Amino acid sequence: MSKELTTREADYSQWYNDLVLKGGLADYSAVRGCMVIKPYGYALWENMRDQLDRMFKETGHVNAYFPLFIPKSFLSKEAAHVEGFAKECAVVTHYRLKNDPDGKGIVVDPEAKLEEELIVRPTSETIIWNTYKDWIQSYRDLPLQINQWANVVRWEMRTRLFLRTAEFLWQEGHTAHATAEEAIEETEKMLNVYASFVEEFMAVPVIRGVKTPNERFAGAVDTYCIEALMQDGKALQAGTSHFLGQNFAKAFEVQFLNKENKQEYVWATSWGVSTRLIGALIMAHSDDQGLVLPPRIAPFQVVIVPIYKGEGSKPVIDEKIGDIIKSLKALGIRVKYDNNDNTRPGWKFAEYELQGVPVRIAMGLRDLENNVVEVARRDTREKRSLAVDGIADQIKGLLEEIQANLFERAKSFRDNNIREANSWEEFVDLLDNKGGFISAHWDGTAETEEKIKEMTKATIRCIPLENKKEAGKCVLTGQPSDQRVLFARAY
Amino acid sequence: MSKELTTREADYSQWYNDLVLKGGLADYSAVRGCMVIKPYGYALWENMRDQLDRMFKETGHVNAYFPLFIPKSFLSKEAAHVEGFAKECAVVTHYRLKNDPDGKGIVVDPEAKLEEELIVRPTSETIIWNTYKDWIQSYRDLPLQINQWANVVRWEMRTRLFLRTAEFLWQEGHTAHATAEEAIEETEKMLNVYASFVEEFMAVPVIRGVKTPNERFAGAVDTYCIEALMQDGKALQAGTSHFLGQNFAKAFEVQFLNKENKQEYVWATSWGVSTRLIGALIMAHSDDQGLVLPPRIAPFQVVIVPIYKGEGSKPVIDEKIGDIIKSLKALGIRVKYDNNDNTRPGWKFAEYELQGVPVRIAMGLRDLENNVVEVARRDTREKRSLAVDGIADQIKGLLEEIQANLFERAKSFRDNNIREANSWEEFVDLLDNKGGFISAHWDGTAETEEKIKEMTKATIRCIPLENKKEAGKCVLTGQPSDQRVLFARAY
Repeated sequence: MSKELTTREADYSQWYNDLVLKGGLADYSAVRGCMVIKPYGYALWENMRDQLDRMFKETGHVNAYFPLFIPKSFLSKEAAHVEGFAKECAVVTHYRLKNDPDGKGIVVDPEAKLEEELIVRPTSETIIWNTYKDWIQSYRDLPLQINQWANVVRWEMRTRLFLRTAEFLWQEGHTAHATAEEAIEETEKMLNVYASFVEEFMAVPVIRGVKTPNERFAGAVDTYCIEALMQDGKALQAGTSHFLGQNFAKAFEVQFLNKENKQEYVWATSWGVSTRLIGALIMAHSDDQGLVLPPRIAPFQVVIVPIYKGEGSKPVIDEKIGDIIKSLKALGIRVKYDNNDNTRPGWKFAEYELQGVPVRIAMGLRDLENNVVEVARRDTREKRSLAVDGIADQIKGLLEEIQANLFERAKSFRDNNIREANSWEEFVDLLDNKGGFISAHWDGTAETEEKIKEMTKATIRCIPLENKKEAGKCVLTGQPSDQRVLFARAY
Repeated sequence: MSKELTTREADYSQWYNDLVLKGGLADYSAVRGCMVIKPYGYALWENMRDQLDRMFKETGHVNAYFPLFIPKSFLSKEAAHVEGFAKECAVVTHYRLKNDPDGKGIVVDPEAKLEEELIVRPTSETIIWNTYKDWIQSYRDLPLQINQWANVVRWEMRTRLFLRTAEFLWQEGHTAHATAEEAIEETEKMLNVYASFVEEFMAVPVIRGVKTPNERFAGAVDTYCIEALMQDGKALQAGTSHFLGQNFAKAFEVQFLNKENKQEYVWATSWGVSTRLIGALIMAHSDDQGLVLPPRIAPFQVVIVPIYKGEGSKPVIDEKIGDIIKSLKALGIRVKYDNNDNTRPGWKFAEYELQGVPVRIAMGLRDLENNVVEVARRDTREKRSLAVDGIADQIKGLLEEIQANLFERAKSFRDNNIREANSWEEFVDLLDNKGGFISAHWDGTAETEEKIKEMTKATIRCIPLENKKEAGKCVLTGQPSDQRVLFARAY
């Protein structure tokens, strides 16, 4: 096989890159830090996006589209926000090019300098709240529950395909409410939508929690998050939902007339997930043979490979498989038939394993005679022979089994990798030798949190929701603490 | 009614803006030339996008995503392309901001100047063909049929909501083929896909044609187009499909090993439609009461307004309407129930007329007693009483009738506004007093075309496909011509 993959053990990071590149999900581009999402990767993203979009609409949200550019001065309006987002970003300073007077190529026209620079959106709170000002006058205009699917740009210095790219695709929800309670309810509701999506569709178990003030979104009162665990023991933040209080309403002067006929500032939330989720998906399930995709979002759920013996077998096998395809499609199963003559069955088997297609069906002449097919599942790599009669129902069941198995496998891995540390030695030892989440007491100060991060590169991933109270001592300072928090090294 | 609309006769251009703004489709933004697409407008775009996407996939295309930014030098690689696109565009020159040393706000960090400026894509041929170079080695890699849904930016000096904005949403198909014939076939196929979509879903009749060299896409060998006619007699280019020959393959060195084992340059096409189509839709069908949307793409096809008489009537009317909604949804009809207590039925009627909802159903106490509803169709504004029994089938039929009627109405308007001009006087007279398309002889030179444009602002919209040959004399110069072409003033 030409596409040799690095194993996880040999080099986890290279294994990941191999899967993204050789699995056909994405490619590097000519623009520093920006990736090309290839058709197979984009089909995966479409399935994820469409499902999330359905869930957003079912919970009362509508989509809209706001400008790509943000006037520089907008970023400064919310004090915390500017600190977090105004630094590493793409700045548009000119609006015209002209022929180089030297006759070679084109140059920026110095005459076409913008009066105020425009920032390519790193996130859209500022431009959206500046718009909401015109849309919200009275309590009757609330709640406003809008989502946007868009590209955003953050000028990251060190980039990784899907996990951290200068440009990425995401959705950002921005809602406006009459009361704090309603906004907090929305924040939690969307966190739960994210958790359901990631667990039920991506088959990745997550921990729901709240960020410490240090790790909060710039401009938020509270940041809720879902945290997942990768196979190398590092955590990955899979989605965030922010309660923004009245911070943006005050920065952009968005008031409404309440039922008591008084002017009041609006309460806000924002929440987002991005193409980064694809990175989480890859690292949660895949193995040394390639990608392993959950059936519910896989671009193809089933691939069928015919094994011809002589030209005479081609029409009869094709016909039989045609019937199978019809029966699979009738059940809504996404199926690909690869009867390409240019490559051999063995090459195809390896290719679709690499691409993580959940189920592979093969049929040769002998199978045809016996009215059976060979079915291989990608998650366990088990093969068995199945009768053609009733095959569609069998496959449908198998897909559900694979989906459930992937989740259970990832969940048991995750659960086995949450460990308590009750001393600093234990904390460091677990971190260096086991990885995973470490549940430990913390004294609640930003100083200690920072110090632990500097010493170990571990951060507080979250304070889990429904955390039980428990008296203890901070793992670093020995100061009193009333609950454990989850630490990990993270992507 | 608070939302008074300008009439078409009083001020066509203001009428258009009123419809966009008051109909809730889009809004101006704080960024010069960029619009906000509001939820109602975005829902319309989603319906258009989803249908086009299905049609692209049915014709063998897949989606992918390429970077937002294009290195400046890429634009210079194709000589004609740079002339057409490198001028008015957004230029990213820096990647960082910093706190103003004067302590006020933020400023561009002069240390963070990019070595090579990045252009926000005005169209993606260059970045895509630079990528295709790595993806195409052999004839086995062809054809490559990729589409991208994306935002693009062209720094227009004079902007109009939807019709011409600095940032807009679009799709751009970019395909690569082994032969010129196959690429030309693809170019024509996609033109036909566009024509089918615009006629069958938007109910806007179009003329298929080829552009003159003057009006070609920058870098194309041939530009095919579909041209529509607006109610003010101006034409609007609704979509273009380009045969690019080997121009981009040569500029980016994209060769493939053909079946005879020889290196050959790849043949290319590109094709696109944008949110501009929404502008065409508005101007093709709407009237002085507001928007008129074709059922097949309207966000809501039916709105139901209850007319309560006293509190007692509310539950009984709600229940009856609940049954109607169920029966409509069972037929896949998109229905909105507006039982909001804050506004009166009369206000709602005007509002949904403004929003162009194809069918309005109203039910009062008397209707309930008679087991009927009042049904108003938006296109003709006719009302009639319909029995509740079997209502869903009736409405389904009515929606189809409205769709067909809109197309027929627009087509007869368009057909009545194609006129032949056989002298210069007639040409100018028709243009100034009738508008519409003028079918006239032209001597085939760019000079004459330019001169006519300067004198009258009319351009050659296209040379219609399947144009009949006919000897004649150029309407301006009297030089011999062998076919008529279509002139018009255009958006």
